[in-house]
Amino acid sequence: MTDTRFDVLAIGNAIVDVVAPCEDSLLDQYDMRKGGMTLIDADGAARLYGAMGPGREISGGSAANTVAGLAALGGKAAFVGQVAQDELGEIFGHDIRAAGVEFATPARPGDPPTARCLIFVTPDGQRTMNTYLGATQFLPAEALDLDAIAAAQVLYLEGYLWDPEQPRAAMRRAIEAARRAGRKVAFTLSDAFVIDRHGDDFRALLAERAIDILFANEHELAALTGLDDFEAGLAGLAPQVPVLVVTRSDKGAVAVAGGERAQVPAEPIEQVVDTTGAGDLFAAGFLFGHTRGENLQRCLRLGAICAAEIISHYGARPEADLRALVQERLA
Amino acid sequence: MTDTRFDVLAIGNAIVDVVAPCEDSLLDQYDMRKGGMTLIDADGAARLYGAMGPGREISGGSAANTVAGLAALGGKAAFVGQVAQDELGEIFGHDIRAAGVEFATPARPGDPPTARCLIFVTPDGQRTMNTYLGATQFLPAEALDLDAIAAAQVLYLEGYLWDPEQPRAAMRRAIEAARRAGRKVAFTLSDAFVIDRHGDDFRALLAERAIDILFANEHELAALTGLDDFEAGLAGLAPQVPVLVVTRSDKGAVAVAGGERAQVPAEPIEQVVDTTGAGDLFAAGFLFGHTRGENLQRCLRLGAICAAEIISHYGARPEADLRALVQERLA
Repeated sequence: MTDTRFDVLAIGNAIVDVVAPCEDSLLDQYDMRKGGMTLIDADGAARLYGAMGPGREISGGSAANTVAGLAALGGKAAFVGQVAQDELGEIFGHDIRAAGVEFATPARPGDPPTARCLIFVTPDGQRTMNTYLGATQFLPAEALDLDAIAAAQVLYLEGYLWDPEQPRAAMRRAIEAARRAGRKVAFTLSDAFVIDRHGDDFRALLAERAIDILFANEHELAALTGLDDFEAGLAGLAPQVPVLVVTRSDKGAVAVAGGERAQVPAEPIEQVVDTTGAGDLFAAGFLFGHTRGENLQRCLRLGAICAAEIISHYGARPEADLRALVQERLA
Repeated sequence: MTDTRFDVLAIGNAIVDVVAPCEDSLLDQYDMRKGGMTLIDADGAARLYGAMGPGREISGGSAANTVAGLAALGGKAAFVGQVAQDELGEIFGHDIRAAGVEFATPARPGDPPTARCLIFVTPDGQRTMNTYLGATQFLPAEALDLDAIAAAQVLYLEGYLWDPEQPRAAMRRAIEAARRAGRKVAFTLSDAFVIDRHGDDFRALLAERAIDILFANEHELAALTGLDDFEAGLAGLAPQVPVLVVTRSDKGAVAVAGGERAQVPAEPIEQVVDTTGAGDLFAAGFLFGHTRGENLQRCLRLGAICAAEIISHYGARPEADLRALVQERLA
C-alpha cells in the first residue's frame, strides 16, 4: 500500500439542512414518519416548508457530516457530492471546505437547485427528515477523481446515495477503484427504506467481499438480515464483513471484527436537543480511530463521544472542539 | 384614533445572517472592528466568507428581529423590507412569515442578491457584523402600504436603513403617513456610524417631534448628544422625545418618559453565547409592553427578559417560547 493523502474519502449527498423545532401533532397532520427520512419532490418541499416554523440552515448530508467530523478530530478527509450553482450550493461548499475537508466536485449549472432536507425536531429531540434531492441525484461518475480514491485509506459510501441511478453508478466505479488500489471500502446503510429497495445489491456486495466496514443501526440490521432479534441479526451478518458496527441509540453500540466483539454504552449527555447526525458522527469517530489503528473498543468510544456532542445541539455538524473533547473524555 | 390591525409595523433591512464562532485573532487579522457593524461590498463579502469557519444561516435584520420577537410574545406585527428573488430571499420570507409576521414586500428580480450579514462570534459572546446590503438597499417608497402604516399603533424604523438613499426616502414617507394617521413613530439608532453620517437628520426629526419613542445604546447616546457622560447625555436627550429607552448591555437599561425615569438590571443568564440581536429583542419586549399600555418599569423588564433569551444562543431570532418565558419571569 502506498502513501495516503486522505484518511477517508466520502461520496454522499450534498445537502443543506433546514432545521426547525415542531410539536408531534404537526408530524401527524402532514403524515410524516417520525424518525425517518422521506424523499419529497419540489411540490412536497414547498408544502412542508410552508408548514414549518422559522428555521436555521446548516450544511448536512450524511457522509458529508461524517467527514466534517473526521476533519474536526484532526483527520484528513475529502468529499465528493453534487451541488447546483446557487446560494445553497455556495453555502454547502463553503462549510465543508471551512471544516477542513477537500471538496472539488464542480457545481452543476441550471435546474434543479441544491438539495435540501427539511428537518422537523420534536420536543423529545427526535428528527424527522424530508429530503428534496435536487442536484445531488445527478452526481456523474465523471466527477470522481480516481487518483484521490486510490490515495485514501478508506472510501466511505452513503447508502442514501445508492437510490438515484447516476450516483449509484459512480459509487460502483469508486468501489472498483478503491479495491484495485488495495484500499478499504466502508458503507453505511443509512435507512431501512434504502434496504427495502436495494437490499439485494448490498447483499451481493457483501457476498463478493466488496465491503470492509459496514455501519448500520438496529433497524437497518433487522431489515438487511430479515431477523428481528438483535443478537441473531448480529450473528448472521458479522461473518459477512470484516468489521461490522451497529449503533443502538441510547443503548450504545456494538462492533464485531474477526470474531472479536466490543461494545460501549451511550455517552452520558445533559439533554438530547436534536438527534440529527448521531449515526454520521458515530461513524466519524469510529473511522478516525480505525484509520489510526486503534482497537475496536476505543473506536467505539470515539464514535460515542462524537455522537453525544452532535445530539446536544441543533444541526449535524460539530459545534464543540471535537479534538479537545475526545482528549478530555479519553484521558 | 381608529382600530389598529398591527401593534407594530417595522421597516428595516431584510437580511439573512451567516453566523460562525471565531477566535479574537481573526478579527485582528482581517481588521474587523469588534462589536461593530461594517458595510462590505461583494468582494469584501467573498474575502471574509472565505476566512469564516462553518456557519449557520439564520434570518436576521435588526427591525425584522424585533417584530419576530413581538409576534412571538403574542403581538400583531408587519414587516417591510427588500429581498431579491433568490434562495436567501425565500428563506427570509419564510422565516418571518412563519414567525407570525405579515410580510408582503415583493422580492426584487435580478442582481444584487438578498442581503447577508457575516457575523463572527468571539468566545466572549461578542458579535462583529459585516453586512453586504445587496437588494435591501433598493427598497422603493412604492413598496410601502400606506393603509397598513395607518393601521399600526407604532411605526418602527431601523437607523441602519437610513443610510442607503431609496429606503431613507421610503422611511420619510412612512413617517409622514404615520403622523397623518395619528400613530406613533419609534426609531432605533442602530449604530454609532449611522449617527456619524446622519446625526443631523435625526436631530432634525427630534426637533420637529417626528419621533415618539427613541431606542439607543450608550454609545449611540454619546454619539448623538456629543456627551460622553451617560447621565449628562440622558438629561440632554430626554426632553427631546416623549419616550427615550437606553440599553446598557450588562448594566441593564434606563427609560425616561414625561419626566418619569425607570431602570432595570440586566436579566441574569447562565452563559452569553452570542450577543447578536440583544438590542433588537429588547425593543421587541419594550414595544410589546408599550402597545399594551404597561408602565415604563414593566416595559423595561419585558425588554430585558427578551434580550436575555436571545443572547443565550446563536442567532437573533427567539428559540424559546417568549410568551411562556415572560409569563414565568413576571409571575
